[in-house]
Amino acid sequence: MVLVDHDLDLHAEGPALTADLVDIASVSGQEGPLADAIERALRRLPHLQVTRHGNTLVARTELGNTGRGKKERVVLAGHIDTVPHAANFPSQWDPERQRLSGVGTSDMKAGVAVQLRLAAALTEPNRDVTYVFYECEEVDAARNGLFLLSRNAPKTLQADFAILLEPSGGVVEGGCQGTLRAAITARGARAHTARSWMGKNAIHEAGAILDILRAWEPRRPLVDGLEYHEGLNAVAVSGGIAGNVVPDECVITVNYRFAPDRSEDEAQAYIRDLFAPYPVEILDSAPGAKPGLTTGPAAEFAKAVGGTPRAKLGWTDVARFAELGIPAVNYGPGISEIAHTPDEYVDAAPIVAAEHALTTWLTS
Amino acid sequence: MVLVDHDLDLHAEGPALTADLVDIASVSGQEGPLADAIERALRRLPHLQVTRHGNTLVARTELGNTGRGKKERVVLAGHIDTVPHAANFPSQWDPERQRLSGVGTSDMKAGVAVQLRLAAALTEPNRDVTYVFYECEEVDAARNGLFLLSRNAPKTLQADFAILLEPSGGVVEGGCQGTLRAAITARGARAHTARSWMGKNAIHEAGAILDILRAWEPRRPLVDGLEYHEGLNAVAVSGGIAGNVVPDECVITVNYRFAPDRSEDEAQAYIRDLFAPYPVEILDSAPGAKPGLTTGPAAEFAKAVGGTPRAKLGWTDVARFAELGIPAVNYGPGISEIAHTPDEYVDAAPIVAAEHALTTWLTS
Repeated sequence: MVLVDHDLDLHAEGPALTADLVDIASVSGQEGPLADAIERALRRLPHLQVTRHGNTLVARTELGNTGRGKKERVVLAGHIDTVPHAANFPSQWDPERQRLSGVGTSDMKAGVAVQLRLAAALTEPNRDVTYVFYECEEVDAARNGLFLLSRNAPKTLQADFAILLEPSGGVVEGGCQGTLRAAITARGARAHTARSWMGKNAIHEAGAILDILRAWEPRRPLVDGLEYHEGLNAVAVSGGIAGNVVPDECVITVNYRFAPDRSEDEAQAYIRDLFAPYPVEILDSAPGAKPGLTTGPAAEFAKAVGGTPRAKLGWTDVARFAELGIPAVNYGPGISEIAHTPDEYVDAAPIVAAEHALTTWLTS
Repeated sequence: MVLVDHDLDLHAEGPALTADLVDIASVSGQEGPLADAIERALRRLPHLQVTRHGNTLVARTELGNTGRGKKERVVLAGHIDTVPHAANFPSQWDPERQRLSGVGTSDMKAGVAVQLRLAAALTEPNRDVTYVFYECEEVDAARNGLFLLSRNAPKTLQADFAILLEPSGGVVEGGCQGTLRAAITARGARAHTARSWMGKNAIHEAGAILDILRAWEPRRPLVDGLEYHEGLNAVAVSGGIAGNVVPDECVITVNYRFAPDRSEDEAQAYIRDLFAPYPVEILDSAPGAKPGLTTGPAAEFAKAVGGTPRAKLGWTDVARFAELGIPAVNYGPGISEIAHTPDEYVDAAPIVAAEHALTTWLTS
């Protein structure tokens, strides 16, 4: 058989398929060729119903509709884009260490390879599966393929449970923390520095805002049995008019990472209260997601995969599923700590292990 | 007699001469026409020796050289440039209030008018006089005419005492405070804000620098009988990398205004000590000047003019005379608080009063 350019062989082992996926460049906004290759591969599989939305692909088993009594549905989702290359393209295979290096290996084409292998192999899984391959996760939220699906075609994502195959070191990471940024302003009164007592120095006033930040103790609540760890940090400060002027304004921007037992509204109210009486402007925010690992399909999944689940501290797209009322976890073979670095890699063993664990859960 | 364009009549009353000077535009860097007019007027006066340096003019009596026994020499100095116009050119005369409005009225063509009137009238003063009319005071120090003279022809400025006719509300202002700017850096360690405890927030660290500023008590030393009032202010703060990154650097720029009992070196050492162990980079500095009003010609001048001298808190060109070892004061008819504002004005009475006081001191 003559392979068309970029045709994917879903029967290749996970690590080899990962290499194939890495070697089709797909920096955010340029996912077309990879989306085409994935679409062609999926459409060859008669047990899947495939739809395309931009460069986002959705492939569904519909066993529940055939009267075979499947009721539960799970989403397996992964993004197909990468950050820009950093002299780490195409991939390199180290046979001694059984390690694949290159952009997107961990984040997250290893996870996408697992999705594709399962999509091809599991013609009759024990629950319906919706495979989602989406674009533009590494750039601003408005372009994110999962966000667009959740707004434009939320039914496509309907499920009892979702697994995001983001790099998690092969451990189940539950939920995620929310995040908000706020600008807090200290005001003063201008004056010439030669007679500074005629004014009021807004930068000095801002010291009281830093006092609050320095004294702040992070909450570490248990949510559904997982321990989260909040953070509150100044991420920017600016003030000053000229070298001889007492400044009348100083703005401190803070980033609050909040545990998922607190809603977005509660988090905003907390920050406004904490910094009262300073004017607080909420710049942006995104809710967290509870892990939901104590009951239902998520609990069964965690039990099947084994190991000790841990709380996801960063914000991830699992929050989008939470917004749709769907419990979701991160579970993937990559390593998040080396994502976006020039030395990004993924080892072969965890790719095979993740595929094995998911196959067991979806067939036993 | 037919007047050539821009010929100045030094026999006009002070307020009228001020108006003539204002109406020859002389924004910094464009003093040529006004310098020409002043040069022509001075060269008509046979008792003065006139030299020109760029757009700076120096006119000297040389009574000491004629064997008439004059030993003391005084400098009367003023800058002829103005800040840019702000819809306040040419001048406007309000006969009811006896008030002249317009750019440079207070700062400091009223003072220049007094200088010119004295230069014309005092053919045989009781001490030798050096009149200096200089360019580019309102812009960066490197272009300042008095600075250039002090570097290129310091002998031109040799004297026992100097009076700068900057606006001082008709009060003798002694000396000036020094000024320095320094950048103080707080360092930390970058981390993702989702795991902020892996890093160290430099903006939070900078709170300790603000603590020092907030706790700082200004010195108010008496120097030669005048009370100075120091100031130490943050004039800029900057820090921050991205909305999700714990920043590793925060820089606070401070401006220290120091009394003239402290040298430039002492002031720098004081700031380094105060903010230890933070790295302190001195960005620029200029020494202050002691008032020197307790003895010698400065004391006699203060006594002759009357009133209660006060300390000059802002930095002025008197510091240049101090660097040459010449005691100097500010004394002029303008009002410094309205300098550089669109509503700048000067009243007629203080112009006449300053001329009268200086005439009395230089002839009695």
